[in-house]
Amino acid sequence: MLTNDTFLKACNREPAAHTPIWIMRQAGRYLPEYRKIRAKVDFLTLCKTPELAAEVTLQPVDILGVDAAILFSDILIPVEAMGVGLEFHEEKGPVLANPVRDMESAERLRVINPAEDVPFVLETIKILRRHLKVPLIGFAGAPFTVATYIIEGGSSKNFLNTKRMMYRHPDVFKKLMDRITATTTAYLKAQIEAGAQAVQLFDSWAGVLSPSDYVKYALPHVKKIFRRIKPLGAPTIYFVNNCAGILARAKRAGADVVGVDWRLDMNKAAKTVGKSFAIQGNLDPCVLFSTPGHIRDSAIDIVKKAEAAGGHIFNLGHGILPETPVDNVRALVDAVHEIKIG
Amino acid sequence: MLTNDTFLKACNREPAAHTPIWIMRQAGRYLPEYRKIRAKVDFLTLCKTPELAAEVTLQPVDILGVDAAILFSDILIPVEAMGVGLEFHEEKGPVLANPVRDMESAERLRVINPAEDVPFVLETIKILRRHLKVPLIGFAGAPFTVATYIIEGGSSKNFLNTKRMMYRHPDVFKKLMDRITATTTAYLKAQIEAGAQAVQLFDSWAGVLSPSDYVKYALPHVKKIFRRIKPLGAPTIYFVNNCAGILARAKRAGADVVGVDWRLDMNKAAKTVGKSFAIQGNLDPCVLFSTPGHIRDSAIDIVKKAEAAGGHIFNLGHGILPETPVDNVRALVDAVHEIKIG
Repeated sequence: MLTNDTFLKACNREPAAHTPIWIMRQAGRYLPEYRKIRAKVDFLTLCKTPELAAEVTLQPVDILGVDAAILFSDILIPVEAMGVGLEFHEEKGPVLANPVRDMESAERLRVINPAEDVPFVLETIKILRRHLKVPLIGFAGAPFTVATYIIEGGSSKNFLNTKRMMYRHPDVFKKLMDRITATTTAYLKAQIEAGAQAVQLFDSWAGVLSPSDYVKYALPHVKKIFRRIKPLGAPTIYFVNNCAGILARAKRAGADVVGVDWRLDMNKAAKTVGKSFAIQGNLDPCVLFSTPGHIRDSAIDIVKKAEAAGGHIFNLGHGILPETPVDNVRALVDAVHEIKIG
Repeated sequence: MLTNDTFLKACNREPAAHTPIWIMRQAGRYLPEYRKIRAKVDFLTLCKTPELAAEVTLQPVDILGVDAAILFSDILIPVEAMGVGLEFHEEKGPVLANPVRDMESAERLRVINPAEDVPFVLETIKILRRHLKVPLIGFAGAPFTVATYIIEGGSSKNFLNTKRMMYRHPDVFKKLMDRITATTTAYLKAQIEAGAQAVQLFDSWAGVLSPSDYVKYALPHVKKIFRRIKPLGAPTIYFVNNCAGILARAKRAGADVVGVDWRLDMNKAAKTVGKSFAIQGNLDPCVLFSTPGHIRDSAIDIVKKAEAAGGHIFNLGHGILPETPVDNVRALVDAVHEIKIG
């Protein structure tokens, strides 16, 4: 039972009482309540324990009053089930023991069956729907972003192995992307069927591609996913990090909402997205280290500029940083809720 | 005595026999001839030994046939002379022993006197002018980029300390930027007076700012530098990495040439820059890991699209990677020289 549907209204480009806001990584280390739970379990265990994952998902809704919850998980959770051997290191981040570099290893990747392979995610969603009064967002990584981890074996600086495979071994790259796309489609469908009321695809690394490479190697797979999950009826969000050079192309992906980072002006972004789509974003996460007054002014500026799009969901332009002062996050949420719109 | 002035012609938006090309970091680790010299001396010693710095500067001109040389140095060389305590670590990159975090440390920064503080740079330029048949480009880091190193104490992921200082301690940030701007102006003037025939400001990190922050905190200082060196008559280049969201603003900096990265389409970039400026760029450095045929097609595409600007200097969108195959770099230079223009 929703008592606040402003988020879904904005996704559907319908008028809402106020601009809805949620925050990427809102369930995370900047919250003392989260750190308390993380002190007891490692990151992967937290993702895979429904009661705990649900608890940290609920924290920012209660503490900050955001207008949507997002499932606590990681984009590499379904990837692990494809057979890549995942570990999280405190310093290096994710490390994949079996990166894909040739056709043989690409063909070994499994297309997952969510009910069997990641039942804990679906269980977390079911628990959450019993408690939440705001909509629940499910999510996955976009295929190109996921492919970079699978090919590089973790985070990367230049994405050299990924691009080399694209250029030199397009058949291997395509095989890999097809497996990821099939997995991601099944995974998002299962999340919606379990109760997720909207889903977001995170394309954290598509912005490292030239526009022509983006159109050739990344966008078609994203389009395929949105086309296949559209019949389920849940609103879709496509977040593209570092999108200034590819936004006009990214909006053609077929999502209802286009999420943008902070390195482009919201006025131009909203005009590019246009009235047929909603936009999400785009405060620099570092602005949360300024003052409540500056945060408020920045929020007003973004909300006004976003009026050129069909709807607006306030968010940061990227995930909230672990060092962020919670009081400033609260100031942001309150400021966004107070801004007169329309 | 120049036997090839295509680079200067393109800077001045005059017709040239072919599109000129040079490559950011063209004197570098991808060349076996460079690695041979670096095996004998560390990076800072190489920068500070005029005969050796001149030798590695000349290497790519001889080996690849590029149309301009760029002084072998580092943007942190004048910064070290400001008193920050610089070391280069093989893994971590630059480490500054005395980062600036408050007014006291900002006020301790010296404005350099190039003839006294970095005589080896000016001496390298004089040696090079005796040998070169193509123009010599001098360079410096743009103030915001330099400030990030001074504030963070090295490379950074989120530039949190830099942005926090901008927002919370604008007086300290301004003091720091003023010192850097004065140093950079003096440094570029001295390079031109010693014989550099053009100069480039590298704004490697301006692209991490939101457009409104870029206009407020970074651009005014760049403008000041170009205004002050303009009377010396040497063409100026302003390279802004990750510029898709701020290019229309960056072109107002006052440089003759605007350098762009690869994450935006050259057609759009050239139209934004327009006929009153030349443009430089914008091949993804990773394309050099593809095939000569793909490299050639990518080069043709960029050259054609760049015709919307007043002139075009071919370059990568960022520095060449150490793993790059030299044969492919040669294939690029040859391809660019063969493309019919106009």
